[in-house]
Amino acid sequence: MSENTSQNVEQLSVNTIRTLSIDGVQAANSGHPGAPLGAAPMTYVVWQKFLRFNPRHPEWMGRDRFVLSAGHASMLIYSMLHLTGYPEMTLDDLKNFRQWGYHTPGHPEFFHTKGLDATTGPLGQGAAMTVGLAMGERFLAAKYNREGFPIFDNYTYSILGDGDLQEGVNHEAAALAGHLKLGKLIWLHDDNSVQLDTATFKAESEDTAARFRAYGWEVLRVQDGNNLQEIENAIRQAQTNKDQPTLIQVKTVIGFGSPRAGTSKAHGEPLGEEGVAETKRALGWDYPPFTVPDEVRAHMDATGRGQGYEDAWNKLMDEYRAAHPELGKEVDAMLARDLPANLNEILPSYEVGGKAMATRNASGEVINALAKVIPTLMGGSADLSGSTKTTIKDGGEFLPGSYEGRNVYFGVREFGMAAAGNGLSLYGGIRPLVGTFAVFADYLKPAFRLSAIQMQPVTYVLTHDSIGLGEDGPTHQPVDQLAMLRSVPGAHVIRPADANETAAAWAMALEYDKGPTALILSRQDLPILPRNHAGVKKGAYVVKDAENAQVILIASGSEVALALDSAEALAKEGVNARVVSMPCMEVFRAQDQAYRDSVLTPNTKRVAIEALAKMPWYEWVGSGGAIIGMDTFGASAPAKVLFEKFGFSVENVVKTVKGIL
Amino acid sequence: MSENTSQNVEQLSVNTIRTLSIDGVQAANSGHPGAPLGAAPMTYVVWQKFLRFNPRHPEWMGRDRFVLSAGHASMLIYSMLHLTGYPEMTLDDLKNFRQWGYHTPGHPEFFHTKGLDATTGPLGQGAAMTVGLAMGERFLAAKYNREGFPIFDNYTYSILGDGDLQEGVNHEAAALAGHLKLGKLIWLHDDNSVQLDTATFKAESEDTAARFRAYGWEVLRVQDGNNLQEIENAIRQAQTNKDQPTLIQVKTVIGFGSPRAGTSKAHGEPLGEEGVAETKRALGWDYPPFTVPDEVRAHMDATGRGQGYEDAWNKLMDEYRAAHPELGKEVDAMLARDLPANLNEILPSYEVGGKAMATRNASGEVINALAKVIPTLMGGSADLSGSTKTTIKDGGEFLPGSYEGRNVYFGVREFGMAAAGNGLSLYGGIRPLVGTFAVFADYLKPAFRLSAIQMQPVTYVLTHDSIGLGEDGPTHQPVDQLAMLRSVPGAHVIRPADANETAAAWAMALEYDKGPTALILSRQDLPILPRNHAGVKKGAYVVKDAENAQVILIASGSEVALALDSAEALAKEGVNARVVSMPCMEVFRAQDQAYRDSVLTPNTKRVAIEALAKMPWYEWVGSGGAIIGMDTFGASAPAKVLFEKFGFSVENVVKTVKGIL
Repeated sequence: MSENTSQNVEQLSVNTIRTLSIDGVQAANSGHPGAPLGAAPMTYVVWQKFLRFNPRHPEWMGRDRFVLSAGHASMLIYSMLHLTGYPEMTLDDLKNFRQWGYHTPGHPEFFHTKGLDATTGPLGQGAAMTVGLAMGERFLAAKYNREGFPIFDNYTYSILGDGDLQEGVNHEAAALAGHLKLGKLIWLHDDNSVQLDTATFKAESEDTAARFRAYGWEVLRVQDGNNLQEIENAIRQAQTNKDQPTLIQVKTVIGFGSPRAGTSKAHGEPLGEEGVAETKRALGWDYPPFTVPDEVRAHMDATGRGQGYEDAWNKLMDEYRAAHPELGKEVDAMLARDLPANLNEILPSYEVGGKAMATRNASGEVINALAKVIPTLMGGSADLSGSTKTTIKDGGEFLPGSYEGRNVYFGVREFGMAAAGNGLSLYGGIRPLVGTFAVFADYLKPAFRLSAIQMQPVTYVLTHDSIGLGEDGPTHQPVDQLAMLRSVPGAHVIRPADANETAAAWAMALEYDKGPTALILSRQDLPILPRNHAGVKKGAYVVKDAENAQVILIASGSEVALALDSAEALAKEGVNARVVSMPCMEVFRAQDQAYRDSVLTPNTKRVAIEALAKMPWYEWVGSGGAIIGMDTFGASAPAKVLFEKFGFSVENVVKTVKGIL
Repeated sequence: MSENTSQNVEQLSVNTIRTLSIDGVQAANSGHPGAPLGAAPMTYVVWQKFLRFNPRHPEWMGRDRFVLSAGHASMLIYSMLHLTGYPEMTLDDLKNFRQWGYHTPGHPEFFHTKGLDATTGPLGQGAAMTVGLAMGERFLAAKYNREGFPIFDNYTYSILGDGDLQEGVNHEAAALAGHLKLGKLIWLHDDNSVQLDTATFKAESEDTAARFRAYGWEVLRVQDGNNLQEIENAIRQAQTNKDQPTLIQVKTVIGFGSPRAGTSKAHGEPLGEEGVAETKRALGWDYPPFTVPDEVRAHMDATGRGQGYEDAWNKLMDEYRAAHPELGKEVDAMLARDLPANLNEILPSYEVGGKAMATRNASGEVINALAKVIPTLMGGSADLSGSTKTTIKDGGEFLPGSYEGRNVYFGVREFGMAAAGNGLSLYGGIRPLVGTFAVFADYLKPAFRLSAIQMQPVTYVLTHDSIGLGEDGPTHQPVDQLAMLRSVPGAHVIRPADANETAAAWAMALEYDKGPTALILSRQDLPILPRNHAGVKKGAYVVKDAENAQVILIASGSEVALALDSAEALAKEGVNARVVSMPCMEVFRAQDQAYRDSVLTPNTKRVAIEALAKMPWYEWVGSGGAIIGMDTFGASAPAKVLFEKFGFSVENVVKTVKGIL
């Protein structure tokens, strides 16, 4: 093939990406044509010249990662998936962009569409997750690569828009990546100076290059975003810098070729039939809609080279297994996310009636017990390791240039931490844990939601779980956070009542592979209650029964002990009360009706107790019941005073029960 | 007083701030001694040399604003309030730091303690709110100052820790402030290179000065954070730069003078009796605990000069009122947050059965009607003004150096926007509105919570309110966000069913002055229903009654029309259904029992319908009822398809009702 022909087919390929994208948006009469038109060349260069992937096996572990952070440009990636030969992404899918039952949702949805490395759309988070992806690669490489066996050795790419860069999480993610010297992370900024409302100059004046250099990044510039060679050169230069992540600012024109080129109007509305036609004319494109010219299909099909990449990697893995049999087994088990068969035996167990213990401290012990047998349990906290007890002792520190350590200093960057947690999980094999105070779940909520939507088993260790944290006061007391977390579909929220429930909760977190688990842990010591491992794993169980119970006291966390004390006080007054511990509503809800009825006997009145907002408890108490919870923010005082003042006392429980009987 | 004596009393004053702070922490046996020891000198200089305030009238409008963003250093500000003469802050309060019933909670709580300009503690947000405070000053100055009458003319100061700077919201806030050229905003970075877990070098390597310069800030450096003159010089220089906000990096030693100086250990634990004693020895301090030396009290008491500042300002205001009587009235009414008496007449009204209309569009019309009579209704969206319909037409643009415009381009900075909204509200007089998609309420939740905790009437315009947004798909469909917002104490969440309910909802938002209001608005058109302004204002009301109703259908937003259609279909099958619109649970909950029972007749079965997570509805349906809501994330398809697929159809409502009768 002559140089010229190759040039032509390249340009034709870029324009095919563009026209498929605008045809898809037009067919849906909904979507974002502007970014695909502008960013098609850089996407083409990344995928065609650099990205190692296998369309026939999208999950191949050795692949490079690519995340379209500007997820609204989804047709761009769907077009790429089709053109490079992912069998699932048919032309029919492209024609049915944004329709029920196709692989082409409005924004790229991991788990819905094969070939994506992350769900994107909520701005800032795609790129932030690539920091976790790149950390994951470095961690597994440091841990498992051996001389001559670079089994974990891939680049991570992301394309970002101006909006991605304005989001706060971009600061957290970029600062972390620069600090950690993630040299194999490459971000391409689709620098078109236009955002939805306006030209960016009305909303920002930052010198993005200077900002990234301040974080320790290398910053390169591509003056002409349509110049494939210039883009290729920049990426090649970025790859040679092993000590710094690289931001490539690629100057583009939003809606390139369309009548709305360079304006906000190109961002988020279909171009219209005439606009599409004009754009195609401007691009010199003369085919019917949704056409892939034969030479483009031949040129971009990556199934051959993709299989080649994977075959070579598989061969390397086989040799690795031969040379390092023990390690090979560990890697295979790790990638399969196998759990030790004797998980329950490994968990620490606490003597009933033994020394009272904060569940955060129990969690710390459990983490350290688990870390011994789960080599990729790793993570850290947002500068609260001493408080959240998330440190893996002897786990080493994950530091710039030294990546084998299992303890990450995420800094006071809750959102960036959780996004990195998603990336670590998405990378594969790793079991990330991230920690902060429960109240600061607010800061990371957008990433928690993406853990759920992507079905990633990230464990959130959220301590200081109620007004029971005491003196830090209302800003730090998470009265509203559990309703927030419990309303996220697919997430598990577990608030254990004591050290043993905490151990069971950790097992549940590791065993649940369809979404994140939030462990809600106390700052203060809690007594060790009668042990019922199986009960915890069903989400709720009877801790203490009473014959012909007239009332069921349902509680979680620190309030279970209060419920037990209250039941005793009630018994003295002739009222029979059953006590139910409900550490996890989501798991209990999934039990069969018979079990649920055996715990919450129908027609028995119920009082729920949790030192947090009442909202989640109405489901369980029903009509005629009562909830002892928080209607207001808390206050600053020692925990004992607060529990008393806000009604979490035996006296008030007894009074409340009598009030409904 | 000789130079030397003055030096001595200054040093003595700084050390008094320090010792009061560590005495308070020690008495509580809980709190943060490190930051007050290190940051006392800069705090002293700001308050003693620059800050204009009146301890006898903390709310005086002409005051400079000061926000301790590192809120855990609360004893620092409590000590300042005591020493400068705020009558409420007694020595007894300092001695009872973090105890029930005193003015000294663990973190500074606006509305609890007079003399604070914001509630702080959740890192990053204090400084972020100062951007709003500074915007507010510029807005009111541009709008109301006249030649010779600089009635709005104050500086805004903040002290930040390393953690504040790591938070994502710091990027959003600093980028916005730099962009807007807020020259009277001065941040002092308590640059002690230590954070809770570690020396900062393990968690970050950013060049903060370079980052801020990239945003357009001036950056100054104080080499010795104990050198009062050096600090004073820097602040004076910052004040001369009218076109750029200034970051002053003040090099300090955390826990200065204590045995733990310069270490993480100094951050968040009391020093212990011996540590306190050692620290006092090192500081050359030889008094009993909680002592204020007479010369310090005389030197720092600001009541005289504070009253002088205010008297001068009051005189200026009187002259202003005389010179500009109309404006004077407007300013007085504005500062009192008066509403027009004929508010309800001003609101647009929509003909029942008239053209269907998206509630976001109705909101846009309402905003523009209100803007005509409420001159400080202002704000904007996080780069979604075209979608959220938040633009005030002819309101002008709030741009760098040109601050009279009422439309702010916040950029894709949801959290920074909401924090600025809090600051605008805290400044006084202004009625800020901020807008984004409802799903991105996740991004701004921490600030929404602070709106509530500070009781600030910020209006959140959150559009694209359910799966009804259609094609953008699950990442953009806010199934979990309403449970999140509704669980925040003191916040109102209103999801109007049509254009008329939207108008009433806006009136409710403006009339509610004890917290934020979130307006949850549809992307899609909704029919205009029978009008009941009074009903909406009670939170819930009967839209359509039926004799001897066998079931009550409760719905909000777009699902009210579905409930009405379903009631009709049920009637045909001989089932009498009452339809209740419940736009605002919080307001309905606050009605008396009689009204609540008149709407939700006790013992009538209930079915709630809302195309969002079910959690908030259990409270209203009780046992034996049913909820038609979302148990999963949504999907990408046209709205009609989604409503059908997820069960929001007349057919499914009828089936569900029959299932429970």
